[in-house]
Amino acid sequence: MSLPNLHLRRFGLILLLLIALPNLVQAGEPLPSWNDGPSKKSIIEFVQSVTDQTSKDFVKPAERIAVFDNDGTLWSEQPAYFEVLFAFDEVKRTAAQHPEWKTTQPFKAVLENDHKALAATGMDGLLKIVGATHSGMTTEEFNDYAQTWLTQARHPKTGKPYTEMIFQPMLEMLDYLRSEGFKTYIVSGGDTGFMRAFAERVYGIPPEQVIGTTFDTSYRFKDGKATILRNPKLAHNDDGPGKPVSIDNIIGRRPILAFGNSDGDLQMLQWTAAGAGKRFMGLVHHTDPKREWAYDRQSQIGRLDKALDEARQRGWTVVDMATEWKRIYPADAGQPAQ
Amino acid sequence: MSLPNLHLRRFGLILLLLIALPNLVQAGEPLPSWNDGPSKKSIIEFVQSVTDQTSKDFVKPAERIAVFDNDGTLWSEQPAYFEVLFAFDEVKRTAAQHPEWKTTQPFKAVLENDHKALAATGMDGLLKIVGATHSGMTTEEFNDYAQTWLTQARHPKTGKPYTEMIFQPMLEMLDYLRSEGFKTYIVSGGDTGFMRAFAERVYGIPPEQVIGTTFDTSYRFKDGKATILRNPKLAHNDDGPGKPVSIDNIIGRRPILAFGNSDGDLQMLQWTAAGAGKRFMGLVHHTDPKREWAYDRQSQIGRLDKALDEARQRGWTVVDMATEWKRIYPADAGQPAQ
Repeated sequence: MSLPNLHLRRFGLILLLLIALPNLVQAGEPLPSWNDGPSKKSIIEFVQSVTDQTSKDFVKPAERIAVFDNDGTLWSEQPAYFEVLFAFDEVKRTAAQHPEWKTTQPFKAVLENDHKALAATGMDGLLKIVGATHSGMTTEEFNDYAQTWLTQARHPKTGKPYTEMIFQPMLEMLDYLRSEGFKTYIVSGGDTGFMRAFAERVYGIPPEQVIGTTFDTSYRFKDGKATILRNPKLAHNDDGPGKPVSIDNIIGRRPILAFGNSDGDLQMLQWTAAGAGKRFMGLVHHTDPKREWAYDRQSQIGRLDKALDEARQRGWTVVDMATEWKRIYPADAGQPAQ
Repeated sequence: MSLPNLHLRRFGLILLLLIALPNLVQAGEPLPSWNDGPSKKSIIEFVQSVTDQTSKDFVKPAERIAVFDNDGTLWSEQPAYFEVLFAFDEVKRTAAQHPEWKTTQPFKAVLENDHKALAATGMDGLLKIVGATHSGMTTEEFNDYAQTWLTQARHPKTGKPYTEMIFQPMLEMLDYLRSEGFKTYIVSGGDTGFMRAFAERVYGIPPEQVIGTTFDTSYRFKDGKATILRNPKLAHNDDGPGKPVSIDNIIGRRPILAFGNSDGDLQMLQWTAAGAGKRFMGLVHHTDPKREWAYDRQSQIGRLDKALDEARQRGWTVVDMATEWKRIYPADAGQPAQ
């Protein structure tokens, strides 16, 4: 073998390695916690078709935007949105600074664990509680409060930290999408600051890819110290039609994949579906009373009614949690699905 | 040489190449259009110190957030913000659909090129013009209008397309930062949708990294068609204190580098400076009446007064355009600076 030839062969080997490496890194079957049902099949088929350069459905990496609802889609949301449970605990933690809460609803009801009185204050009461616990501090302080709560609080039914009640199959889907060049976003009714307190650590989703409900904020500069103050006024309600609005405002591209679990996600799915080219729309259907919860059309939390009809009608992917997920939470033993 | 030994050496060579490749790609001196002045030195020293893993100032790639104002920082802004010139041209283009404009100020003044009457309508008149030309259509339509204008319109003084009046030295800085793992954002008083119409093509900044002034929008779904409609109501004014507010809201991380050119950028620079660890704050100082414009404390457009004082006082980088930039626009011959 002549010397130039050896060099050429070496160069070829290096090139081969450079090309093959990204693929070798994510060896192994994707979505191991998904049974070989219709949902796993539809996810993989979609990803393969938009990432295959020879496919008519090919989408360049920069446009591979995937959006996920959070509550009920990436983690559980029963018996109440976890952020609402955080707000209740914050009322208790800060009660000493608000002696008037002892005699004022809805705070009195929270402090006395009076579920009936609390329910009687309705949505108005809930908004007061969220407002009182989510504003009047800097965004950094709020992040600290949320982080502390997420570390210390335990779910009333499972006894787990809330950040362990995330869905293992969805974590695998996020990883799979990212390994295929997708940018994964949260687009959720939850408070942006609350979700940022755990999204990077728990889902691998960085703060700039977390979109949610926001409060009005103000910039303050005093004695060389700059802060952003959270005001008691909702700026954007990231639910229903608020989702496509924030996607367009903040991302500025139409997603090619959207995943939700409730009627509050319908407009986000419609907006995604209405784009040109191949699209993926998915819903998590909570059908597993044993390992998680079972609810849809009648639920107060995460009601899935109109979106379920539209999904069936338009052939969107509806994940049957009970039969399609081998495990729900990361710590689950992987017991066979029903 | 024995066979295993050859394999080992080959493997070593491959490893070396894998490690060296990212660095080889951006070979050559960074910032070639910058003279070897204090600004170039301060930029390179900053980047080296935050990207050197052995440095006490090392910042991990995910936190290398760099924010840039647009008007006057990445492209020119005289004799008026280019977006305002776009709005004037849009009034003329759509005048046939608004016969009442012939007799109503401020539109009459625009249609008659009556600068004096236009000036007399003041900021209120300008807001009416911007409102009328920036709302009442879908976000996709607005993007089309902006793209068409950017292709066809020419600057009254230079005769160039506006997208050729971008600053070559700043383009090089954006490239340099990205090659060093920074995420580059625009944070500007310009309309987000207007800037997205050219930011990716011209600056290499994707839509999701463009933050600006926004109008209220609404989601519309009719006959299977989903659109986002721009309403004639300002949602966020991304100027002055609005800049740190939108950075915190949309990025959720404090930048480590911020670049502006006017008092409207001061709060963004303060917010950046107030973070822990090494920071870079920069201002473009328009000092070049021959190749661009010269203005600062007295200018109606891009006034630089308080921010200039604070920059001098705190040792921030102030770029003297006339002496530090070898060329202004990409097409410039690279004539020596003054």
